[in-house]
Amino acid sequence: MTVQDNWFIERFEPTGSAVGFRIAAKLDEVQSPFQKIEIYQTTDWGNLMLIDGAVMLTTRDNFLYHEMIAHPALFTHHDPKRVVIIGGGDCGTLREVLKHPDVKSVTQCDIDEQVTRMAEKYFPELCESNADPRAELLFDDGVAYMRNCPPGSVDVVIVDSTDPVGPAEGLFNKTFYEYCLRALKDDGLLVQQSESPLAQLELIGNMRREMEKADFNCFKTLTFPQPCYPTGWWSVTMARRNSIFSFRRDDAAGKTFHTRYYTEQLHEGLLMTPPFMAEVLDF
Amino acid sequence: MTVQDNWFIERFEPTGSAVGFRIAAKLDEVQSPFQKIEIYQTTDWGNLMLIDGAVMLTTRDNFLYHEMIAHPALFTHHDPKRVVIIGGGDCGTLREVLKHPDVKSVTQCDIDEQVTRMAEKYFPELCESNADPRAELLFDDGVAYMRNCPPGSVDVVIVDSTDPVGPAEGLFNKTFYEYCLRALKDDGLLVQQSESPLAQLELIGNMRREMEKADFNCFKTLTFPQPCYPTGWWSVTMARRNSIFSFRRDDAAGKTFHTRYYTEQLHEGLLMTPPFMAEVLDF
Repeated sequence: MTVQDNWFIERFEPTGSAVGFRIAAKLDEVQSPFQKIEIYQTTDWGNLMLIDGAVMLTTRDNFLYHEMIAHPALFTHHDPKRVVIIGGGDCGTLREVLKHPDVKSVTQCDIDEQVTRMAEKYFPELCESNADPRAELLFDDGVAYMRNCPPGSVDVVIVDSTDPVGPAEGLFNKTFYEYCLRALKDDGLLVQQSESPLAQLELIGNMRREMEKADFNCFKTLTFPQPCYPTGWWSVTMARRNSIFSFRRDDAAGKTFHTRYYTEQLHEGLLMTPPFMAEVLDF
Repeated sequence: MTVQDNWFIERFEPTGSAVGFRIAAKLDEVQSPFQKIEIYQTTDWGNLMLIDGAVMLTTRDNFLYHEMIAHPALFTHHDPKRVVIIGGGDCGTLREVLKHPDVKSVTQCDIDEQVTRMAEKYFPELCESNADPRAELLFDDGVAYMRNCPPGSVDVVIVDSTDPVGPAEGLFNKTFYEYCLRALKDDGLLVQQSESPLAQLELIGNMRREMEKADFNCFKTLTFPQPCYPTGWWSVTMARRNSIFSFRRDDAAGKTFHTRYYTEQLHEGLLMTPPFMAEVLDF
């Protein structure tokens, strides 16, 4: 991580590629018990949050990620009422989930309260639903939360975490996925951010294999543009047991809320895995 | 443009964002009469071509751009037999166009022969169809080529150029689009690379307005991931006169060639312009 001549550049070793933004000013920095959080004002992308030097989000492009981790999963489940978000401390995913009027309760469990405090200050639009009576915000260990969840109590688990190193490492293995499957109802659905489809296909394959060891057996990876992440292209992977990924297209078409990227037509198109991915993720 | 500590970083002023790659070695450099062309070997992305310091393509991700500038346009036209490519010197678009067995002749007109010479050496897979008897490679001024094209002789014009500065500047205005429209048959189609959908929406709007001044009146912008370009998200804009953008879906589904990204399902999904774009490109 470097800021030089007013540019912040993230050199991402796993993909051998870099992304960066032109910086107008540094706004804040806090060292939490878990990680260092920095906020910059950019010239063209609004505010920028870094965690341990890695880009988390910008004002301008976070709608892509937040819409795509929330809406495809929620429109795939036939009737999602109880949702758990592991991670997601910036509250953008929570906001999208709460747009679904039939959702009755959402618990967001992020280990680091400072992420939410910084989001409230520098990304207030993402936190505008935090006071919704259906929302519960916890600052705790997500693995422990899922371990202690009542069996068969959750419709959709959303894992909205950082990269699989550091605090989020425990969210990418069989043990965690077993807790998720036990917490889910029979027709429940797990969705997790799964890094870059082009440059980290092996990681997506490894994730699916860990999910499979935990007894998930149906998988679908959806891709979407995300300029602020390495390679500018990102993915979410959905996992279920004995179920499919067709979705409530009519409900998506008739949704009562606005989206900026997600549409039912796009969702339908993304269900066809691009051939270069299908050749590797052949399960 | 800088190479520092084995990383090449392109800081792109118009979008206030940067992309970059980890470099293993510099392989070549040539100063043509038009521009400076450099070739690097990267650690993860194969070879990398720069023109005047801007990323043109990498071995690893160019299939996205080349498939998406060629196949949606060719499957939209009801029977493309005669195709002209303006620019496209790396020959990747030509290769994709020639995959369509019903295409009878393709002329590629790039101003800079050195781009093709470098592609033959460092991206030979893109040049594998250059000897196809249906292909004609010219190294000349693309504006002049379109001006001199027999009226009503072309089915599809593909403008596969660099950014709208320098040698390609003349490919983004009314005069050039008038030449294109005159060269096209009545049901012809123009498709042009149109930069970043999120960060350069204004440019796409300006392009469409210039096209409109030249009497095109139907437009459709399709987006796709392109990690090596600024923001990692790119677009092509199709323009026609009194015609639509539904496509030969059955032919696309039954195509006799392999694609790595393009599918008919994706094509269908992309015809719905994302809401954030539709709000700006309301014509």
